[in-house]
Amino acid sequence: MQLWGGRFSGKMDPQAWQLNASLSFDHRLARQDVRGSLAWAGALEQAGVLSSDERRQICAGLEAIDAEFANGEFIFVESDEDIHTAVERRLGELIGLLAGKLHTGRSRNDQVATDLRLWLLDHLPILDASLRELQSALIQRAEHDLDVLMPGYTHLQRAQAILLGHWWLSHFWPLQRDRQRLAQALQRAAILPLGSGALAGAPFEVDRLALAGELGFSDAAPNSLDAVSDRDFVAEFLFCAALIGVHLSRLAENVVLFASAEFGYFELSDAYATGSSLMPQKKNPDVFELTRGKAGALLGYLTGLLAVLKGLPSSYDKDLQEDKPPLFAAYDTLMAILPVLAGALQSLTVHADRMRDALDAGLMATDLADYLVDKGLPFRQAHTLVGKLVQLAQSQGKPLNSISLDEIRALADPEINLKIDPSIYSVFDPLQSVSRRCSFGGTAPQAVRSQLERAKQVLGGF
Amino acid sequence: MQLWGGRFSGKMDPQAWQLNASLSFDHRLARQDVRGSLAWAGALEQAGVLSSDERRQICAGLEAIDAEFANGEFIFVESDEDIHTAVERRLGELIGLLAGKLHTGRSRNDQVATDLRLWLLDHLPILDASLRELQSALIQRAEHDLDVLMPGYTHLQRAQAILLGHWWLSHFWPLQRDRQRLAQALQRAAILPLGSGALAGAPFEVDRLALAGELGFSDAAPNSLDAVSDRDFVAEFLFCAALIGVHLSRLAENVVLFASAEFGYFELSDAYATGSSLMPQKKNPDVFELTRGKAGALLGYLTGLLAVLKGLPSSYDKDLQEDKPPLFAAYDTLMAILPVLAGALQSLTVHADRMRDALDAGLMATDLADYLVDKGLPFRQAHTLVGKLVQLAQSQGKPLNSISLDEIRALADPEINLKIDPSIYSVFDPLQSVSRRCSFGGTAPQAVRSQLERAKQVLGGF
Amino acid sequence: MQLWGGRFSGKMDPQAWQLNASLSFDHRLARQDVRGSLAWAGALEQAGVLSSDERRQICAGLEAIDAEFANGEFIFVESDEDIHTAVERRLGELIGLLAGKLHTGRSRNDQVATDLRLWLLDHLPILDASLRELQSALIQRAEHDLDVLMPGYTHLQRAQAILLGHWWLSHFWPLQRDRQRLAQALQRAAILPLGSGALAGAPFEVDRLALAGELGFSDAAPNSLDAVSDRDFVAEFLFCAALIGVHLSRLAENVVLFASAEFGYFELSDAYATGSSLMPQKKNPDVFELTRGKAGALLGYLTGLLAVLKGLPSSYDKDLQEDKPPLFAAYDTLMAILPVLAGALQSLTVHADRMRDALDAGLMATDLADYLVDKGLPFRQAHTLVGKLVQLAQSQGKPLNSISLDEIRALADPEINLKIDPSIYSVFDPLQSVSRRCSFGGTAPQAVRSQLERAKQVLGGF
Amino acid sequence: MQLWGGRFSGKMDPQAWQLNASLSFDHRLARQDVRGSLAWAGALEQAGVLSSDERRQICAGLEAIDAEFANGEFIFVESDEDIHTAVERRLGELIGLLAGKLHTGRSRNDQVATDLRLWLLDHLPILDASLRELQSALIQRAEHDLDVLMPGYTHLQRAQAILLGHWWLSHFWPLQRDRQRLAQALQRAAILPLGSGALAGAPFEVDRLALAGELGFSDAAPNSLDAVSDRDFVAEFLFCAALIGVHLSRLAENVVLFASAEFGYFELSDAYATGSSLMPQKKNPDVFELTRGKAGALLGYLTGLLAVLKGLPSSYDKDLQEDKPPLFAAYDTLMAILPVLAGALQSLTVHADRMRDALDAGLMATDLADYLVDKGLPFRQAHTLVGKLVQLAQSQGKPLNSISLDEIRALADPEINLKIDPSIYSVFDPLQSVSRRCSFGGTAPQAVRSQLERAKQVLGGF
Repeated sequence: MQLWGGRFSGKMDPQAWQLNASLSFDHRLARQDVRGSLAWAGALEQAGVLSSDERRQICAGLEAIDAEFANGEFIFVESDEDIHTAVERRLGELIGLLAGKLHTGRSRNDQVATDLRLWLLDHLPILDASLRELQSALIQRAEHDLDVLMPGYTHLQRAQAILLGHWWLSHFWPLQRDRQRLAQALQRAAILPLGSGALAGAPFEVDRLALAGELGFSDAAPNSLDAVSDRDFVAEFLFCAALIGVHLSRLAENVVLFASAEFGYFELSDAYATGSSLMPQKKNPDVFELTRGKAGALLGYLTGLLAVLKGLPSSYDKDLQEDKPPLFAAYDTLMAILPVLAGALQSLTVHADRMRDALDAGLMATDLADYLVDKGLPFRQAHTLVGKLVQLAQSQGKPLNSISLDEIRALADPEINLKIDPSIYSVFDPLQSVSRRCSFGGTAPQAVRSQLERAKQVLGGF
Repeated sequence: MQLWGGRFSGKMDPQAWQLNASLSFDHRLARQDVRGSLAWAGALEQAGVLSSDERRQICAGLEAIDAEFANGEFIFVESDEDIHTAVERRLGELIGLLAGKLHTGRSRNDQVATDLRLWLLDHLPILDASLRELQSALIQRAEHDLDVLMPGYTHLQRAQAILLGHWWLSHFWPLQRDRQRLAQALQRAAILPLGSGALAGAPFEVDRLALAGELGFSDAAPNSLDAVSDRDFVAEFLFCAALIGVHLSRLAENVVLFASAEFGYFELSDAYATGSSLMPQKKNPDVFELTRGKAGALLGYLTGLLAVLKGLPSSYDKDLQEDKPPLFAAYDTLMAILPVLAGALQSLTVHADRMRDALDAGLMATDLADYLVDKGLPFRQAHTLVGKLVQLAQSQGKPLNSISLDEIRALADPEINLKIDPSIYSVFDPLQSVSRRCSFGGTAPQAVRSQLERAKQVLGGF
Repeated sequence: MQLWGGRFSGKMDPQAWQLNASLSFDHRLARQDVRGSLAWAGALEQAGVLSSDERRQICAGLEAIDAEFANGEFIFVESDEDIHTAVERRLGELIGLLAGKLHTGRSRNDQVATDLRLWLLDHLPILDASLRELQSALIQRAEHDLDVLMPGYTHLQRAQAILLGHWWLSHFWPLQRDRQRLAQALQRAAILPLGSGALAGAPFEVDRLALAGELGFSDAAPNSLDAVSDRDFVAEFLFCAALIGVHLSRLAENVVLFASAEFGYFELSDAYATGSSLMPQKKNPDVFELTRGKAGALLGYLTGLLAVLKGLPSSYDKDLQEDKPPLFAAYDTLMAILPVLAGALQSLTVHADRMRDALDAGLMATDLADYLVDKGLPFRQAHTLVGKLVQLAQSQGKPLNSISLDEIRALADPEINLKIDPSIYSVFDPLQSVSRRCSFGGTAPQAVRSQLERAKQVLGGF
Repeated sequence: MQLWGGRFSGKMDPQAWQLNASLSFDHRLARQDVRGSLAWAGALEQAGVLSSDERRQICAGLEAIDAEFANGEFIFVESDEDIHTAVERRLGELIGLLAGKLHTGRSRNDQVATDLRLWLLDHLPILDASLRELQSALIQRAEHDLDVLMPGYTHLQRAQAILLGHWWLSHFWPLQRDRQRLAQALQRAAILPLGSGALAGAPFEVDRLALAGELGFSDAAPNSLDAVSDRDFVAEFLFCAALIGVHLSRLAENVVLFASAEFGYFELSDAYATGSSLMPQKKNPDVFELTRGKAGALLGYLTGLLAVLKGLPSSYDKDLQEDKPPLFAAYDTLMAILPVLAGALQSLTVHADRMRDALDAGLMATDLADYLVDKGLPFRQAHTLVGKLVQLAQSQGKPLNSISLDEIRALADPEINLKIDPSIYSVFDPLQSVSRRCSFGGTAPQAVRSQLERAKQVLGGF
């Protein structure tokens, strides 16, 4: 069956049919399609197109179909061009010619846009819950590892001492932004296209706002031409997905690094590591590498869709059928990654000793400069002075905190020298170093504790 | 001058210096850099790092620098690695060694992130105003051309009659969504990184929330590691820009089509058209083609930045310097296109007669089916029947409304035939056709008038 | 079964297993995997790792497996992590412990790279044949429609008269470049990774050049580290695919335009057109719109893969597993489109009359200028003069060829006026216009005939 | 001056003019534009359009202009819309009205396509030379560091011992492939569009093959419609550039890792490192991070251009003007990176001791398995056995080579046990390990020496 063809005399070429058919992916919209049709039947009754009885019959048929989908009993036939055709074909089998009244005033153009938005309204909360679980895992880790001292890096060079709790939380906040973006994308997705017909609107009075409310939308699309061709909501979701991918890739890159022998900070649980078919000793962080790799794929989905949309003329064009594969792929990708990451993070072992050992005195060079600033030296001069001390220590092959007071004094101004005393060496205590960074957002234990509370608060439900 | 180098004994290779330097593009952050430094000087005084007098001197110097930038009198020197270095270098020239105190507790990492966000806070409203102007032009056109009848298209095939006012407004709403997205992106950009130091926070108590307020941010970043590396706000802006590009490309594609000899619906004003160096008769819609083309470039900026971010480890890495060129390029691109489009649309001539002539009877085929539905035929059967009539008319080389009642009756059920009378030909009046589509969002004149009011309302200020 | 795990005490988390497993897509490499293993068994015998008898048994087992794949009888089990594991597992079932000798000196890293290259070597010729068929269709069309006069466009504005045969061939040459690129990509893909082990090479002497020859490669990869991580061949294929997509999208855009009512140049056969579920009169060029849309998807595959590769460290990382989905998707996409396009082009109807009617005199404006050049006016002045005549004609609402000699003379120099006579109107004959463009590559009938011969020649086999 | 406008009565809007003008970037084509015009003047003479004397005058003017460009003395004026206009305007100033004859039979469409191809023909060899220099640097490093033992990695986990010379060369071969791709792209770029006019060909006989030869092209484009719109050569260059970017990003990622404190393998020379404005001890690998970042930007250029091209109709559209910015940006990016990388690699210090120390016994686990294979155990069983030994050693916190013979025997088959003796410990010698991987492409010293010879050979000129 196909929903068109009255004016055609020839049959479609089989390969063209294959190319054109979308059932292989839009079958995922089955439940949404039925739900939309149930609501549309109501609108048709309200508009006087269907009698109460007709509506009842149609809805009974649709509910039977919905049950078939729910139970996996719906049988597709070869001629089902897409999910809409399949449902209308089956409705005809169940209730006869009356089924032909359901499509009055409706087009597949407004129907599929409605289905796809409904699908997103159904699934974004599921994705949000998975993100939230990963955030919970990060909070748990931050709580557990809060006071573990470790080197912080910039340019992948050891920079300053930080707390591991702080580090874990640095991966929490990007996901919070992601969830906010998704929530706003969801609001923009919750605009009903149904009632827009093929492009020009429904040919009778429909209360589209009521229809919107019934289907869980917050508003109806204000322009029918825009409504049937607007795929902003897909693009926006794919952007959110790509950016989530970027955030996860950042976490993944770090875990891969920290799980290397050279860093030795993290050890993955056997449940989340893999081996080599050749090298018996290997324990590989595949799930994190895949996460990083899939961030690339997610970027491709976004790019692909935007390229599909670019340059299309107004209103519906068949190119828009290319919206679904990347949408589903992006969703599936994230849903495959997120729970695994949560599990992998929760189960990994932290080697706090390795982290502590990596805190060489050089990481406190800024603290040394700050000490000199405290003694009255402008920071820029203090920075230069400490830079020279670093060079001196390195040329002698000794750590920065082995520099003697005399060596310091030899490079500093007389005025400053008077103020320097052995207390200067206290700057090399990493705990003191982190503790000084106590402002909002800093790595001091107290600041991280506050941050943790805030994280729990925004997450809710702890 | 460079802000580092105490520990270095060798000089930087000149080509490496060139590669590393960012002044060629980050000079655009000059005013924001000074503003951030003024606020930071205040924070340093409040934290006891600067005396009141020191702060006054520093601020006086900074204000002098700001005036130099405002007047185009600031002179860059070859050794200015970036805008931050240039400003601190100049401050030293103006106020001496005291300038070296300004960078206490601050790093270029939190500084540049602050500057760039400030730049966006300054410029997004300008972009928004340009979008609003284009929307105004669309509203004016819609008002002016509201009742002009034209063919609506799907698949670039004539589909149903619509009003030109409806069509113009179909380009209004996507821009409204864009502006909403930009406004939300702006809110997420308004989070202050300053006070995060290089990565670990400021080494003394700073009231970052006060600092945020002073600089026009709504909050301070809750995690210093995240704060110095978060470029979500750039990605989000570039996504908004790419999607605006897609929307403008859709408009542009349509105008290019409508300005062709074949459509003949639009004629561009000489002020917005160009000619050919070879063909004397040509009048080309270059500005619309460029708009369509630049949508591709905008997509490239987004893709490029996301690819830059993907797989970076935590905290600041120099790769992030690649955030500015696409950000500035995307902004400049949109600011070059938007006013031109507004002007081109306002000044173009609509050939309403050509549009009206294109409304062949076939566009009312759905209305014919709806008529039959009204007579009791299920829509699916009505659709098939009309399809056959279309085929019949075409095979006879005559328009659909030349089909005789007898020809219709020959194909329809006896039951329906009884209900068909010459009033059936009224469906071919395009004004009746559009008038029937009177629900919210439809193309009926009354519905479009309501839509226009709503558009004016959301735009404000009319 | 998994090919690793000796050192692991815990079991893998089921969701992590799912994420990690690649069988759902790499099963497509089954035949290639077996072929590679057969060759590897030979190499092991040659290196003395396997006895002749062992090799024979292993090869017999592998051939039995190959037959199972060929006949669709191979049964995958849940624990098959990937195609390599599945084959080795099955081999063990068939020949016992001896199967465990096959993986000596080999890793899945060099194995999968080999399989994927083999797959490409197998499938690129199939793709090439499909491209060639589309080229043949274009040649046939060009031959059939060679002398049909039509407007050529630039900026979608009518520009100059051309021949339809010339236009069809303009879509032939891009595909020829594509095929050349694919052929060169194929050559670069034909470099054997096998024998590179996990990263460091095989732990015994293998004659990799012989192995390469046996498997149909032209050379062996010269560096084992590079060999296991090089995915240039995938990127290059995806680029070729994306560019083919761009070329097909150009053709598709044109057909969509030409099949519109406004152009009316082409009419699609019913076998390659689709209808509307709502509008009975519609005949939509869906297959061309999908082609155009899928060009966007192809661009996404390329972008995604390059983003996967960017920033990866040396040698094998699991991210590389993300190479296969876009490769297979791009191949399948092209193989779905190409035969349909060939069929659709061959079966479409050309309305030569509509094309001829569109040749208004304005298209010969350049010819008019050329005429004046012939009379001694510099082209730039001729261009300006004709531009004014165009303006004059337009202001009088008449075609350019209705301009009188006096009107022309009123605008031209006296010197030129002497040379103008009624023969000037001959420039408005479109056939003369095209005939003048007789150089190599031009649209004159003779030049197009030569071009057609050349096209047939490079295509071969006509 | 503009090269069109005869038919226009209004003046162009200034912002539209700005948007439309391309001089800000296409001025880079100045020399190529003049060269193309010189050749075209010759073709016009040959075709009888210009007299010998006219040609001489025009060529003299053009050569004067060329000299002005060469000496930086050419003065652009505000009304120069693009480089072609600027040159023709200047020619008019120099030789008067005769200048107006130069554009006969030519359009900016074929002119700009010719110029851009000429530019690429001029600049690809320069890029190639820069790539070659980086390859030379890699060869020098490989030669210098050939025998340094280091851990090879997969999944960023230590995998097997390799030679540093082998590692350096693993970055050589991808660049060799890049250069091959560029050379083939160059060949495809060397097809002359000139003589195609605006779209339909030149209106008189031109010997385009002679013209091609004169300008250094290998052939003339066979179809004028294709010739003016074909931007495959830009896309292909941008793909090559993006893939070079990917290769350089791989090298960069590795250097960033190896220069970290945790790896400690590489130390950058001061000439190629940068410091921190805050942290005095920092020595950052900025140039490598920028390289990695710019790979993202390069990907964006490619994506952007392909998105520009996708969906354009046949022949010239103004969108194509968006080809130049990404082309120039990609070229400039690579030319900024490549010499810096060459210098940075040549000047970095290798810490061979750190590499040697990282060769823990676990890296020889595969060698241990190979030893057991040698004793008759199938590899799969040997792999499992060694896996258990790894686990045992790890649980006892000792290296793999501290496992006693008895511990091994306790896990192995009696049959194998008979064959195990203390010689088993020799497998833990990393030099033996690498030496075993002696096949073509392997990491054995002899194999790497051969590889080095081959690298020098393909590079040439050593």
